[in-house]
Amino acid sequence: MRTRPRTGAMGPLDAKHSPMDNARMHTFINSRFCTRFGLTTPVALAPMALASGGALASACARAGALGLVGGGYGDLAWTQREYQLALQAADTGRIGCGFITWKLDEDASALDWVLDRPPVQCPRALMLSFGDPRPYARRIADSGAALICQVQRMDQVPQAIEAGAQVIVAQGAEAGGHGMNALNGRSTMTFVPELADWLSAHSPTTLLLAAGGIADGRTLAAALVLGADGALVGSRLWATQESLAPQGAKDMAVATDGDGTARTAVFDILRRKNWPAPYDFRALRNALHRQWEDRIDALRADPGTARAAYDEGVRSGNFEAAHATAGEAVGLIHDLPTAGALVQRMDAQARALLV
Amino acid sequence: MRTRPRTGAMGPLDAKHSPMDNARMHTFINSRFCTRFGLTTPVALAPMALASGGALASACARAGALGLVGGGYGDLAWTQREYQLALQAADTGRIGCGFITWKLDEDASALDWVLDRPPVQCPRALMLSFGDPRPYARRIADSGAALICQVQRMDQVPQAIEAGAQVIVAQGAEAGGHGMNALNGRSTMTFVPELADWLSAHSPTTLLLAAGGIADGRTLAAALVLGADGALVGSRLWATQESLAPQGAKDMAVATDGDGTARTAVFDILRRKNWPAPYDFRALRNALHRQWEDRIDALRADPGTARAAYDEGVRSGNFEAAHATAGEAVGLIHDLPTAGALVQRMDAQARALLV
Repeated sequence: MRTRPRTGAMGPLDAKHSPMDNARMHTFINSRFCTRFGLTTPVALAPMALASGGALASACARAGALGLVGGGYGDLAWTQREYQLALQAADTGRIGCGFITWKLDEDASALDWVLDRPPVQCPRALMLSFGDPRPYARRIADSGAALICQVQRMDQVPQAIEAGAQVIVAQGAEAGGHGMNALNGRSTMTFVPELADWLSAHSPTTLLLAAGGIADGRTLAAALVLGADGALVGSRLWATQESLAPQGAKDMAVATDGDGTARTAVFDILRRKNWPAPYDFRALRNALHRQWEDRIDALRADPGTARAAYDEGVRSGNFEAAHATAGEAVGLIHDLPTAGALVQRMDAQARALLV
Repeated sequence: MRTRPRTGAMGPLDAKHSPMDNARMHTFINSRFCTRFGLTTPVALAPMALASGGALASACARAGALGLVGGGYGDLAWTQREYQLALQAADTGRIGCGFITWKLDEDASALDWVLDRPPVQCPRALMLSFGDPRPYARRIADSGAALICQVQRMDQVPQAIEAGAQVIVAQGAEAGGHGMNALNGRSTMTFVPELADWLSAHSPTTLLLAAGGIADGRTLAAALVLGADGALVGSRLWATQESLAPQGAKDMAVATDGDGTARTAVFDILRRKNWPAPYDFRALRNALHRQWEDRIDALRADPGTARAAYDEGVRSGNFEAAHATAGEAVGLIHDLPTAGALVQRMDAQARALLV
């Protein structure tokens, strides 16, 4: 592994932000993220609600990555069970947990439970997404967990820094699941280098992960070349054997190319999730989605029939009605390996490209 | 420069497409695109209507890139003047021209004029975007120009191959100007590797350029790592001294970060451009845009007042009303260098990251 400049300031730049620090160096694949978190590959499992359970998080941790359990909407019983499963299966110090921030504003009992674990069971990292992390910052810092904040726009970054984030995740709109809507969202390709420059100038010890579209060694290597210290991987790890996503949803993802997703409010309305603006949801663009994607106001006004069809789809495992949560990276997903094999494959391919 | 595998097949993949050809190798920065087109850097100027004139195209060509004049909507007099200017200023064999395909269906006189040049003035490449290229394929092939087809989705690729495209441009929705709308568009990060795999399996001699978000050496290097043979650069070259974009628009771009753009139909309606679905337009999200972006149906139904405000903005050079066409990469644009200096800077930075 060679040492390389982190930022893009190879030539003169009249920076919008302060000038970048050319002296800051990092190695690509053995990044600061690996060093700081004791990892052997610069990858974190996205804490996907109901998919990133204990088996998937522990498999990632054993493979050298950071395994974040998907605390999601903050279901206490689910979080207790899966977090404990993860700890039992991976005594690695690489287990953490993630929550949807605006849901914590309603009920933080699952967060409280995780942070109240005895020191040996304390999460290595606690990730917050989709809302203001500052009300939870002190509590997380006191627990000893590293705070990871996911952002979708540059203008959310100062809030994350103020909360004391040790890691910021730059999530592009190509990501599966929740993210920023079409009018406001960013793409990974531009967001990562822009945020890398900002951090170099304003908060150089804060690490940066790329999220959205990272699904093989090429995209992992690209994230590092763009200036990230690592990548948060969602869809690609969702489509592994240990993921708790339904088998039918995973099979549909393998058969779908990258054109076959959409980011709208449709599934949040169907699932009765009152997500605040400007967030929406990317999933496979199935038959029920197509039926409503051009009539979202009408769906919101009178969701009854569509919800019945959706509920029936969930019950029967019909993913032309139920949602299958994958992002644009689905076009790079051709199989359903174990998470360990997948992490190893991505790492080896990225190393071959970057060495 | 080292030789590296082009595709992602470092591990076994049960491919949706045919298995990738591991034996196909390319060098990163001295790519097949350089070899085939006689370039010294794997960069092409996007043929931006009314911005990519003869001065910009020739400056790119002299810097070792492919300079595509922005034939755009097919204005004959503009194309004649700027194409001849480009040829006069750059006797490099690196000058071409680009058109909006669906406009050619109405009036192809500018295309005809370019293709009717004597052999020594024949465009090195002819790029078509936004429509079916097949009706023009024979005419272009007979002229000796290489056909470059820009696509926004995987499902447009077979048509481009059928038209005999020597180069396919994978355009992500982060790009400035026209592209695919939010429901249908792709992002560069996932689109490029997926299309690289498809071409490896189905049309291995067809070259691939990445477009959307490529604005410095990091993003150029990332495009190559993702499997592209080069990059088509729009916004970053729009913001150079030779670009014909208005100075006020360029200045506003330098002052805007990457959060400050949006992709909608607003400016096409204001400009009286009847773009077919599913295309729309990314530009700086200015005051007039914000006023209408949530009421696009109302704007379409009664555009009079808004058009008057827009026209006045164009007349007076007020870019809070008139459009300034830049993509998300605007957050990586901090200065207005010459195109030659910019191309040299991007190339040097990419080489430093990849060597």
